[in-house]
Formats: sequence, structure tokens, C-alpha cells
Amino acid sequence: MSKDAYTPHPDRLLPTDPAVREIARGLYERMRDQPIISPHGHVDPRLLLDDEPFRDPTSLFITPDHYVNRLMFSRGVDLADLGVGRGPLDEADSRTAWRLLAEHWHAYAGTPSRLWIEHEFHEVFGLETVLSPATADDMYDAIAEKLSRPEFRPRALFERFGIQVLATTDDPVDDLAPHTALAEDASFTGSVIPTFRPDKYLEPARPDFRELTEALGEAAGEDTSTYDGYTEAMRRRRLYFRDHGAVSTDHAHTDPGTTRLPVEDARRLYLQAREGSIAAADATALRRHLLADQARMAADDGLVMTLHPAVLRNHHQGIFDSFGPDVGFDIPLPVDYVRGVQPMLNDVGLDPNFRTVLFTIDETVFSREIAPLAGVYPSVYAGAPWWFIDAPDAILRYRRAVSETIGYSRTSGFIDDTRAFCSIPARHDMARRLDANHLSTLVAEHRMRHEDAAAIAESVPDQQPREVFKLPSAGTSTGEDQS
Amino acid sequence: MSKDAYTPHPDRLLPTDPAVREIARGLYERMRDQPIISPHGHVDPRLLLDDEPFRDPTSLFITPDHYVNRLMFSRGVDLADLGVGRGPLDEADSRTAWRLLAEHWHAYAGTPSRLWIEHEFHEVFGLETVLSPATADDMYDAIAEKLSRPEFRPRALFERFGIQVLATTDDPVDDLAPHTALAEDASFTGSVIPTFRPDKYLEPARPDFRELTEALGEAAGEDTSTYDGYTEAMRRRRLYFRDHGAVSTDHAHTDPGTTRLPVEDARRLYLQAREGSIAAADATALRRHLLADQARMAADDGLVMTLHPAVLRNHHQGIFDSFGPDVGFDIPLPVDYVRGVQPMLNDVGLDPNFRTVLFTIDETVFSREIAPLAGVYPSVYAGAPWWFIDAPDAILRYRRAVSETIGYSRTSGFIDDTRAFCSIPARHDMARRLDANHLSTLVAEHRMRHEDAAAIAESVPDQQPREVFKLPSAGTSTGEDQS
Amino acid sequence: MSKDAYTPHPDRLLPTDPAVREIARGLYERMRDQPIISPHGHVDPRLLLDDEPFRDPTSLFITPDHYVNRLMFSRGVDLADLGVGRGPLDEADSRTAWRLLAEHWHAYAGTPSRLWIEHEFHEVFGLETVLSPATADDMYDAIAEKLSRPEFRPRALFERFGIQVLATTDDPVDDLAPHTALAEDASFTGSVIPTFRPDKYLEPARPDFRELTEALGEAAGEDTSTYDGYTEAMRRRRLYFRDHGAVSTDHAHTDPGTTRLPVEDARRLYLQAREGSIAAADATALRRHLLADQARMAADDGLVMTLHPAVLRNHHQGIFDSFGPDVGFDIPLPVDYVRGVQPMLNDVGLDPNFRTVLFTIDETVFSREIAPLAGVYPSVYAGAPWWFIDAPDAILRYRRAVSETIGYSRTSGFIDDTRAFCSIPARHDMARRLDANHLSTLVAEHRMRHEDAAAIAESVPDQQPREVFKLPSAGTSTGEDQS
Repeated sequence: MSKDAYTPHPDRLLPTDPAVREIARGLYERMRDQPIISPHGHVDPRLLLDDEPFRDPTSLFITPDHYVNRLMFSRGVDLADLGVGRGPLDEADSRTAWRLLAEHWHAYAGTPSRLWIEHEFHEVFGLETVLSPATADDMYDAIAEKLSRPEFRPRALFERFGIQVLATTDDPVDDLAPHTALAEDASFTGSVIPTFRPDKYLEPARPDFRELTEALGEAAGEDTSTYDGYTEAMRRRRLYFRDHGAVSTDHAHTDPGTTRLPVEDARRLYLQAREGSIAAADATALRRHLLADQARMAADDGLVMTLHPAVLRNHHQGIFDSFGPDVGFDIPLPVDYVRGVQPMLNDVGLDPNFRTVLFTIDETVFSREIAPLAGVYPSVYAGAPWWFIDAPDAILRYRRAVSETIGYSRTSGFIDDTRAFCSIPARHDMARRLDANHLSTLVAEHRMRHEDAAAIAESVPDQQPREVFKLPSAGTSTGEDQS
Repeated sequence: MSKDAYTPHPDRLLPTDPAVREIARGLYERMRDQPIISPHGHVDPRLLLDDEPFRDPTSLFITPDHYVNRLMFSRGVDLADLGVGRGPLDEADSRTAWRLLAEHWHAYAGTPSRLWIEHEFHEVFGLETVLSPATADDMYDAIAEKLSRPEFRPRALFERFGIQVLATTDDPVDDLAPHTALAEDASFTGSVIPTFRPDKYLEPARPDFRELTEALGEAAGEDTSTYDGYTEAMRRRRLYFRDHGAVSTDHAHTDPGTTRLPVEDARRLYLQAREGSIAAADATALRRHLLADQARMAADDGLVMTLHPAVLRNHHQGIFDSFGPDVGFDIPLPVDYVRGVQPMLNDVGLDPNFRTVLFTIDETVFSREIAPLAGVYPSVYAGAPWWFIDAPDAILRYRRAVSETIGYSRTSGFIDDTRAFCSIPARHDMARRLDANHLSTLVAEHRMRHEDAAAIAESVPDQQPREVFKLPSAGTSTGEDQS
Repeated sequence: MSKDAYTPHPDRLLPTDPAVREIARGLYERMRDQPIISPHGHVDPRLLLDDEPFRDPTSLFITPDHYVNRLMFSRGVDLADLGVGRGPLDEADSRTAWRLLAEHWHAYAGTPSRLWIEHEFHEVFGLETVLSPATADDMYDAIAEKLSRPEFRPRALFERFGIQVLATTDDPVDDLAPHTALAEDASFTGSVIPTFRPDKYLEPARPDFRELTEALGEAAGEDTSTYDGYTEAMRRRRLYFRDHGAVSTDHAHTDPGTTRLPVEDARRLYLQAREGSIAAADATALRRHLLADQARMAADDGLVMTLHPAVLRNHHQGIFDSFGPDVGFDIPLPVDYVRGVQPMLNDVGLDPNFRTVLFTIDETVFSREIAPLAGVYPSVYAGAPWWFIDAPDAILRYRRAVSETIGYSRTSGFIDDTRAFCSIPARHDMARRLDANHLSTLVAEHRMRHEDAAAIAESVPDQQPREVFKLPSAGTSTGEDQS
């Protein structure tokens, strides 16, 4: 066997103890072939509408993936050499970027990025070598050749991946034309649904707040020069999204505060924000009020509200100026969920039509805040690990931190949160293996009956996210009755 | 074997590796049959004084247990249907509540509540089936039948459980008549001791602060219209408790601040608090001063001071208005112990008569704050995991976080903190199994000699809490010399 | 075999599963005999310059080791009885202190201090018994006898330990004469380099700030009566240190804030600080500015900047008054790295000449802050666990928390941070065993190829710290090419 030979091991991510691994294998078997439900992610819907071939290995694996870019940047690679902030790379530059990845590939050992990409190399592209300077060109060529085939176009992969629901992330002023076209396209049977992501329209401190609210008004056919008009415009755009298949809204502010203002204060501060004269503290207060309004609207229109606050975006100004956002310079902050969402939960937390999923990249709140909240409020679910902590040990820490308070039934199911289309099955597969890992250990330690673990394994990939995100039940559900 | 058959596995909660499990079994054997010392809990002393039979399975297992209720509530069950906020349920409603638990029982898989209750089903009531809709009525009937027998009355169970010391939690104005009567009852040989819990009398922001302090004064025979009278009343009531067997006081405020005020400020603010005119910040400052006073009194009277701060109580106002406190809506907050207790420890932290035990439900302080403090101040002990984190993985995280700094000798021993009388042996048994788990892994990794692990196992259930809580040594101690 | 017989197990700290342990053994073999690189510690350079025999077992193992003293103090032993705050102990008192350690030795079971010291007993002194009251005197005598031999003098041990680089910690005004003498001593071939530790000169709130800055000015030959003179003095002293072999500076303030002030404000506040009239908030602001200045100087002179903020020093005033600093009363605080170092990283974080290593004893920032920062900024490395968390479980938590984001290549390598010279090999050995433990588990779970784990094992003890701390490459490197 060549020293370059490599395929992912079928037992990867399962426990090492032979007896426990055997239990884990059985639980994983119950999950492995279930469909993929992806209620939150960042794939562009035009990818599936246009169904154009992927351009080349670099634009597929490197340029848009800030997990991959950031580690290379920290090791001295220029972001521009990876295609970041540039248009499409030509063949030579694309291959050069690929060789850079190969050269640094050893530094990704043990990271989820490497696990995902090696899963893709093997399961999607059928490769059986490890990426290295020695194999880089051959692997590049092999992938490039595959990408030219019809069965590697996005729609074919969508079907092959077993994706049943794929949610995108969309601007409130978006007309959702790609979603409409996809829904009307009889040749495409998947479900690609939008998600309402109004973050920037809720940030009164932004210098472009007037322009943003103007655009919102235009999209909604409302005069947004006042708070009341803005609110009505939001309500209409949410309904527009819901009418186009959306099941959720997504919110990521610096904190999860939801304190309401007296309405006259909200009206006054909104005008100041439009004029660009709002004070920093008032802008924060108004933003929290506007988020609380989103919760009220959610109780009306039934869209599930996902929160993932507390990231300091664009930590380095120079990088932001050169390359823009989303290039790996967003760094997590501590979060205070308990006080942050208290006003919102006192307002609508017992409303049967309201539902929220709390995500975090501050692990300290799993056992301290999120599980205690999700274990008492019927409207609250504990979100899966996200972003930096969408990784094997972190996912196990999450299950071990929350399931002692809330079991599995008050958790969101797995969320891939990715813009890397081909990594979707790898990520869901990793999550299933880790749930099998966690559950098998509970069984082996006689903390859970095998029957209960098996029922959870049956329900967690498909039934659980459908229930949490109010998606229609699958006709093909294989879930056992859990009673 | 029927598919409903189920009994807890004798090796539950021990490590999965066969060689390590063998070590763990041996260590657990040294702990299993030791008596139960319960230096903090919420059992009503009248339960043992009156020795009435338990009413029915629902009032025993469901209604008073907010761990159980809160998860069902989050899954859509009305608290009232579980008996919360109502008087005793009639037979039909009690059975209906029981069937609700059976219906949702699968959602408790992996939680400590389920482990405790299944322990009780088997070890206390001799049941050998799993709770489910199919078995609910039979199990209800079997438990109800047992409850009518003399050997299932509280005193009989107290003896059968091997409880040697049971501390209750009591109001400072309580006359402790049940404790006195129990102590004088020659037919009852157990030790049921009160605990002084003055929280509400230390909260100057409460609207009923005047009424509370009046009641305190009446109980103490002191005029509490001034700070000095209040302080003297506190001192007297603490002595009254100590004279009735109390060994500790318990304190749970929003933060563990203990900054002292100049006495003239304390006097002035106390008057304002009595008049209801104290400002919020001043009320907090006075509360911290009053807690610091409790520490001084503790250095005088020798009562051990247990702290478990940083919980946001009654997170939802509507639930509080309908059902009152302690129904599952208390959510943990981050805690700052290092600065909080610094004034108190500078004041009395080296006093040989002073002792404090620091509990938390914010796990981040175990390695960062509590272990470093308990590993240097002779007066400070690290409290066992409490409340949401009284659970297998959390308990192991605690041992792994603190024992590298302070071993076992600076920890409190297990605290069940429960109002569910029948769960006491289940909880202590879980803690013993988990200590065996932790210690056996250290032995197997050659990080601790087996002899040392065995000596710790001998001492941790009985000798350790007796020493920390200044309880008289057991005549029946089986502990080996640790030298 | 006597019941007192004891030697550390060759497989200690490796995983318990037999198959995983076998992998771990192989990885550990690759690290075991590599040289020791110690880029940060507190050994006195005169120890090696003078090469006097160690005085006695107590002054070697007890008196200067606050890890050891603090736990005994918490158990009721007087610090003075351990020699703290006194001159050298006479033979009787030294032996008495040793017997105290023996008496309390069981309480250290499971702590790293005990693991280190038992390693030293066996590997350095060849003892084969466990410390206890029964063996105390014999072990004392055996060690004392060894200490009188030439092969137990510091230089002989330095060579035997395989130390290639040992960094000390030094005051900016130090003339580094011992370092110079050592470097010029042809009979000593080791590398003992200074570290620039300017903490106290950056604390404008200190009452002795004027005296300190005067002394700094004198050492530098600069007039430090102004901010500009002070800055120039700092620059010169840093260069002096660099010219004497220093590769890094070390900084430990209450927070890692690095916000710059307008230079005129810095000048004005500096004068106020010199006069002792600076307000507390201004002193904090100036300290953060001065730390930001150190970062700028680091970008100029290339010295690596190590940060380990957020410790509340001298928690008990009475102990400080009696025994001074560094006796175990420093307690960790939460740290905010993300906002703290943002100004500094925006200023020089992309400068190829700037490098910083972020240490913490607040474990919550490993996955939330440090790994995300080290995984994108080329200048940032994640520091190894330090101080209270330089312990087996904590080190494994660190690797599991950071390596999913940054692998091993963005981490500092092991730092012993010790003043206990004889514990240096024990600490490095522990770290190597734990890295083998972590890596072997990744291999056994098929999360990392064995080849990649082996390459990391080869590089982590020697090559990694040399690279991070800009030390010259070893001629004797055994590292494989990682490509």
C-alpha cells in the first residue's frame, strides 16, 4: 500500500473501548442513512437554481471557507493567495492555492475541517489518498475532472446527499426569486427554504441605518420614516418570507438583550437613528427593543427565532478594510442569556406559537444557562454547537453538559450552519457519529437503557429538527415510537 | 423476560473499561454500606415527627420535585395537572399525573432524576419494570400498596436508608418544635438537625423587610427597629438554632459580596430599609454588609456558613404569580467568588472558629476560583455540585476540576440538597459510584496509589462531611488511618 | 515487597484502554528523551553560576514551592513552620518541616505536586519508597546525603536533565551579571537566558512608582521624569536584555487591556503617577497604554511578548503583611482577552516582527477566545496551561479545547513556569505523557492518522518552543519533516 493511501476509517469518532464501540456502531447504523434536514445554513439558492458545475477545487474547498483560510493565514499565508477578496482565480492561481493547502495540511490534523474535507474527498469524490505536496496535483486533477461530470452538479449532489430540507439565509429585502423559481421547477423536488435574517436592520448605530430602512420600506411597500412604519414593514417582510417557505428567523447581535422600551421612546430613538444622531447607549437600547419586537412578531407569525449572539465581528480593522467581513476575524465573547432573554420570555415565552433556539459559541452557558432555560420554558430549545465549537470534543462536551438537564428532546438537532455545500453530509455524519458516541457511553455505563438510546438515535437526525423547526413530518420517517 | 422488565445495573456509573471497572467496584464496595450523612437538605422535620404514611405515588415522586415538573412543563404539561400549586390531589387526579409522568418518561433518559427514581422504584419499592404508559397503572398500584404498610412510613425508611444525620432548612423565627420533639422522642434514634437559613431577613430591598425584621425581633425578644437590635436578634436566633442542634447556616443571594460598610452607614441604611425608602444600590450594599456580619457571627458561634449564590430566582413573573417560588424557574448566573468573599476572608478567613463551604451552579469557578481558595484558606471548603449539576457528568467534571488543586480533603463531601426524602439514598449512592469512578481512573492511569484511593473511599461518605460540618465522629467509623 | 515500596509506574498518565495505551507508549517514546526547552520559568541564575550544593531537602522541596505550602496551610500548618518568610532553617527545623510534609502527604494524592515530587524522588534521587511518617526520616537522610555529592550540584543536574535552554525571569534594572558570567564560563555549556519582566514599572497606581521609574532611568542612563524619557529607558533596557540573550518579555496585570491614549494624555498622566496624584481609573488607563507601548517595542525589537493576566494577587492582606507575595494567596479571575488585546492586535498584530503568547488560568477562554485568536492572527500563539491548571486533567482539557480550532502548530509548547529547579524534568515529562495521551486517543478514534500524530510528537517538545520563542534551531533535532 502506498504511503499516500488514505481513506477515512468506518469507525471514526466512535469510542475506543471495543464493547462500547460495538454499541455505538449499532446506534450509528440507525442514523447513518436517514435524510439530511438542514434548518440553518448559508448555501446560495442560486447554486441549485442554476445548477452550474463547480468551477474548480479551490473555489469549492478553500476560497469561501473561512475555517480553512484563517488557519493558513495564521501560518503566514496571504488571504489573497487563497482567492479571498478576488474574483474567480485562473487555473494557475487556483492550483497554486491548492498546493498551499497541501503544504499546510498537516497543521489541520485533528481539526474538524480536515475531517470534513477528507470525508468529502473520499465519499463525494472517491479519492483514496491523503493530501500532501506529493499528491496535490493528482488530487486537484481528479477533483477537477469529476466536477465536469453531470453527476457532480449541485442538484445531482443534493439528491445523492439525501438532503430533504435546506434552509438558506436571506436579506429581508430579498425578493426570494431563486426560491420561487426552485419551488416552481418540477424537475427539482428538494425543499430549499429561505431564512429571514434581519440583523443589520436592527442596528440603529449603523451609519447606513437610514438607507437600510429605506430599502426595507421599499421592499415592503411601507413608509419606514417612523418606527410604526418600520415595524409594519418588518411584519410584512416576515410574512412574505413565511409565504415563501421560511420557517425561521436568525439573529446575531453582540448581546441577546431584549428589554423593551416605552413605545414613545422607541419612536423617538428610531427617528434619531434615522437622522444619524442616536447616542451609542440609546442605539443599544433600541436594538434590544427591536429584537423584542421580533419575538412578538414571531409569536404572531409562528416563525422560529434562532439566536446566536456575542461575537465580536471584524476584530481587525485593516483586514476588514481589505477583505470585508466573514474572513475569519470574528471572535466569540461571553454571553449573558439569563438576563438577556428574560424580558422576551416574560413577554412571549409561554405563548404556544412562540419558539426560540438558543445557540452559543461560549460553552460556559450550556450547563449554566441554556439547559436550565430549555428545561423549563416550552418555547426554548438548546441549539447545537455552532461555528468554532462544531467539532468532535466540543459536541461531546455539549451533550454531556445539557443532556443531564434536558435529555435530547429539548435540543435542536444538528445544524450545519455552512456555506460549503459539499461539506453538508460530512458535518451531519460527524454529528450522528458523536451522538452515537455519547449515547453508547451512557448505555455502557448503565445510565440509559439501550432501547431508549435506540429510540433517540432513530429520532434525532430527522424527526427532532422537523419538530423544533415546525417542518412537515417526513412521509418516510423511520422513527420508532418512543413510549 | 418481558420487554417491560428493568432493574438498575449493579455496575451503573462505573467506568466502561473492564480493568478500570474492576478497580472501581472495589472502591465502591468500601463506600456502599456506609451510613448517610446529609448536612444540607429540605426535608420537612414533621415528616419524621408525625410519621404519617406517604399519601400516594404522585405526591411522593412528582408534585414537590421541581426537577421532574420543569421538564414536563417544558414539554407542554400544565403544572397544575402535576399538582403544583394545588392541595392534595384526589385519587383520580393523582393517577392522571402519574400517567403523565409515564408518558414523558422516555424524555428523562440520561437525566439524574430518572436514575434516582429508578433506583427508588427498585431499591425502595422492589419494582422490576420500567415506567411506561403500559406499566403506569400497575406501578402506581404497587407503590400505593407499599405506602400503606408500616415499613414504608418515614421513620422506618429513615432507619432502612441508614441515615445518621439529616439536616433540615429552617426559618430563623421557627421555634424548632418538631426538632425538639424528635430529639425528646426516645423511640426515634436518628439525628434530625435544623439549619439556619436567614436569606430573606438579609434582603433590605424586599417590600416586607419591616414585617420580616419585626417577626425576627419577636422571635428573639429584641427590638429590631435599629440595626443594632437586628444584629443582636440575629445573634440570639443563631444561638437558639445551635442550641437545638444546628451546625450550619445557609445563604443564597444573587452575589456572594461581603463588603462591609462603616457601622453608621449600616445603621442609617437599615432604617431606610425598614421605612421602605432604601435605594436599590444601597440595599445591595447593606445586604453584603449583613452577610459579612453573618460571617463574623459564625466566627463567634462556630456555625458553618454554606454559600450558594448567583441564581436568578423566579425568572418568569407570570409563573411566580400563579405558582409561587421553587417551581423550576430559578436559573443560574455567573458568580464572582474571588472578589465577593475577599472582604469576609480578610476579616475572619484565618479565624480557627470560622468555616465556610462554597457551592456553585456556575461550573466555571471550580478550577478558577473555588479550588484555589479552598486550597489555601483553612476556613474554606469546596462544596459538592449542587442542583442542576448534581448529575453524573457534572460531578465527574467537578472532581476533575478541583482535585488537582485540593485533592479530596478540602471538599465538602456529598450534599443531597433534596426535598424528596425517598431519593436521599439514591443520590448518595450515585455520588459514591462517581467518586469510585473518578478514583479508579486515577489509579488505572497510575496517578494515585490504590492504597490512597482506598483510604479516600473509606473516608469520603461519612468522615469527611462530619469533619467539614463539625459533626460528632461516628462511633461506627470504618475509616482506615490515612497515613 | 515492603508496604512502603513505591516507584512511579512507567505508563503513568497514559490512557487506560490497552490498545490506546499501546499507541500512546509509542508516541511518548518519540518525546521522552528529547532535550528540555524551558522558555519561561523562575529559577535564579545564580543557582547555576555559583553551583553550590542544595542545602537540604526542605529548602529544595518545601519552602520555596507555594503549591506545596498552600495546601498544607489550608490544612492548618503554619507557613513559618515550613520555612516561609524565614531565613534558612537549621537541621532540626528543616527535619520538622519535612515530617509535616510526610504527615500531610496523603492529602496530595492526585495532585500534580505529588506526581512531580514522586518523579523527582525516584528519577533524580533514586528513592523507592513512598513518603509517610514512617519513611520520612530515612528519605530525608537519603536525599540529604545525595545533595552533598558533586553529581547533585545544580550544573550537574542541569546536564543530566538534558536542559538546553533555561529562561529566567528578571527585573528590567537587573544588570544580568549572572547571565553574563554564565555565558562567559567555558565550563558551562548550557543556555541560561534572561526574560524581561517589567510589570511593576507599568503600574502607575503603585505608591513607589516614582522610585521604580527613577531606578529604571538610572539603569538605562535616561531621565525618566517624563513619559518620553521613561519610554526611551524601557526601549534601552529591552535592548540590553536582548543583547544578553533574552527572547521574550513577560506581563501579568489584572487585565490584558491595551487601549492606547493620546500621547499628550499619556504624558500628563505619567507626571501625575510620578507625583502620586493619579486617579485609580487613570492609572488603569495609563497601565493599558504602557502595555500597548511594550507591544510596539516588541514589534521593533522582536522580543516575544507573553501575557498571563487576571490574577488577584495577595488575596489576604494579613498574610501579605507577614509573609510577602508569592506564598499561595494569588487567586485567578475571569479574563476578557477578545476586547483586551484588540487594540494591540490592530496596532501590531499583523507585523511580522511581533509575536505574543496568551496564557490564562481562566479555562473558559481556551475555546472561546484564545484558540480563535491564535487561529487567525499570525502573531498570536495559545499558551500552555499555567499555574493552577498545569495539571493532567486541565492539560487534557486544554488540548481538547484548542486543538480542534488550531491543531498543535499554533500552541506554545510546554512552559514549566517553575522556581523548583529539580521539578523541571518531571513537569516536562508530564506534559509529554499527556500530549501522547491526547494524540493517541485521536489516533484510536480515527480522528488523526498515526503518521500525523507521530510528526507532532517529534516536534512538540523541542522544535515547537524554539519556533515560537525564536530560539535557534537545535543542531541535534530529531524532528521528522512534517510535510
